[in-house]
Amino acid sequence: MTNTASKPLFDTVAFIGMGLIGSSLARRILRDGLAKKVTCAVRSEATRDRVLELGIANEAYCDIKSAVVDADLIMICAPVGANETIGAQLAGVLKKGAIVSDVGSVKQAVIRDIAPHLDEGVSFVPGHPLAGTEHSGPDAGFPELFEGRWCILTPVPGESEKATALVQALWEACGMKVECMDADHHDRILGITSHLPHLIAYTIVGTATDLEDALRQEVIKFSASGFRDFTRIAASDPTMWRDVFLNNREAVLEVLGRFQEDLMALQRAIRWGEGDKLFELFSRTREIRRGIVDAGQYFTNFSAEGEDRHSDETGKKKPD
Amino acid sequence: MTNTASKPLFDTVAFIGMGLIGSSLARRILRDGLAKKVTCAVRSEATRDRVLELGIANEAYCDIKSAVVDADLIMICAPVGANETIGAQLAGVLKKGAIVSDVGSVKQAVIRDIAPHLDEGVSFVPGHPLAGTEHSGPDAGFPELFEGRWCILTPVPGESEKATALVQALWEACGMKVECMDADHHDRILGITSHLPHLIAYTIVGTATDLEDALRQEVIKFSASGFRDFTRIAASDPTMWRDVFLNNREAVLEVLGRFQEDLMALQRAIRWGEGDKLFELFSRTREIRRGIVDAGQYFTNFSAEGEDRHSDETGKKKPD
Repeated sequence: MTNTASKPLFDTVAFIGMGLIGSSLARRILRDGLAKKVTCAVRSEATRDRVLELGIANEAYCDIKSAVVDADLIMICAPVGANETIGAQLAGVLKKGAIVSDVGSVKQAVIRDIAPHLDEGVSFVPGHPLAGTEHSGPDAGFPELFEGRWCILTPVPGESEKATALVQALWEACGMKVECMDADHHDRILGITSHLPHLIAYTIVGTATDLEDALRQEVIKFSASGFRDFTRIAASDPTMWRDVFLNNREAVLEVLGRFQEDLMALQRAIRWGEGDKLFELFSRTREIRRGIVDAGQYFTNFSAEGEDRHSDETGKKKPD
Repeated sequence: MTNTASKPLFDTVAFIGMGLIGSSLARRILRDGLAKKVTCAVRSEATRDRVLELGIANEAYCDIKSAVVDADLIMICAPVGANETIGAQLAGVLKKGAIVSDVGSVKQAVIRDIAPHLDEGVSFVPGHPLAGTEHSGPDAGFPELFEGRWCILTPVPGESEKATALVQALWEACGMKVECMDADHHDRILGITSHLPHLIAYTIVGTATDLEDALRQEVIKFSASGFRDFTRIAASDPTMWRDVFLNNREAVLEVLGRFQEDLMALQRAIRWGEGDKLFELFSRTREIRRGIVDAGQYFTNFSAEGEDRHSDETGKKKPD
């Protein structure tokens, strides 16, 4: 599916941060003419030069004000830990009628850190495109990243519906399915589907990293499918994920507590040789996989993770 | 790479069990003429009929004796929990000079359960091809499953070197790289690279399964990359994995203990907002991924997991 929009949704879209997500969205906007102009603010001169070299923004700056002052849409694509500093720099500089949105993996903390800084007449539409790879930086982006995936918006009650509709239209033009929900509900769901799995993957790869040298080398050499999958997840951007865990603390600790209990029960079953308990759990977990395949989440994603691109699509019993 | 062997390595290869691994090896042997005849023993008449329908064995039986009595190589491809029963049925029925091998994911327990039953003049070469998918059964197999992957053999001291060389030649003809090591060393490495990741994946998917219904539906709907990867792992064959955990208990409990400690430390860092500790771990884990990519384990596998087929091969910063 290609989206060649008949007319731009925005005059100027300003990006704050040009990592994997920001640079993918900027590429898509420019490719499909979804805005007349793309500007961006990045932290280093090297990144600014690289962004211009890649041609993924019309203008690039090392300060936020220059990038956002004329923008109709300001898209914050920085680690969520930077939001308070970013928010403070938006106060008093945005056009009346401008929309601020973001792509952060947590939503309650983003609202807490950004909303208080925004002037009267500026709309705020927090968002989270559920798309990504383990790569980061402006070179890692590509315009098809969002195709077929979900984007969750968590509009603040009382905010402009028109602003929400425009942000929704932008993500839909990128090929996403959009759904709105409360920020706390988002944080709880993502705590389970994304944050806990990343925490576990980081932990298990860390455990392997701490092995004595010879054994670690063999673990790398013979890394079987399970572990190799985990290393991919655990290669994700450290700053982004540090900020996620610090900013979704309650939801992560809650689900982590459940996970620990369940793991202890399994550990005990192994120690006592309780094969029936193991078999029962291992059978139950197959069903949730079927749910995911049936829900189609598995079929429609051909640009984010490789495993999605080529598996099960034919319905044949082929490996993925 | 296709292997069209100039002459068969064996006259008759008998399979005990025709699941994913057995049926993949049988397909490969028949496709490339690696043996003159393939026989098999399976547990149910339905499976026996299916195997013959698929044409992946020349003869199929519901009893072990009929399948193995004339075989030069007996390849045990059953869940490791069945080994003691299978071993007892091999006593006194095999040809002199026959070789018994297997594909089990644990090796010390296999040696414990099989070796005592084998007659004088029969060689035993325990093996473990590191290949698989989450699918199971005779329909799930395909002849390229082993291509480019490692196979570990754990020959018992004093056994025939000629038998080991023949089994090695078979796996190499299937496209595998073969390495020999002690059984206890194998079990420790696989405890880390395969058994622990599977246990964790089963646990986290189980934790999600136990959520209240509405939340679980949304977890399925919005399953992000981390969780979706885990559900694939947790869809693996329940009987096989139950037997793995019961038969590699010590190694699994040891590495699980380390993992639990590390997870507790991370949980504490989140609770106390210790961002530096999180960042430090998340940076370190990136390195082991690079090790795996550098080791080439990541590049050479194009038939087992889909993520391997299309990622990083070009060296470009593309998602996988």
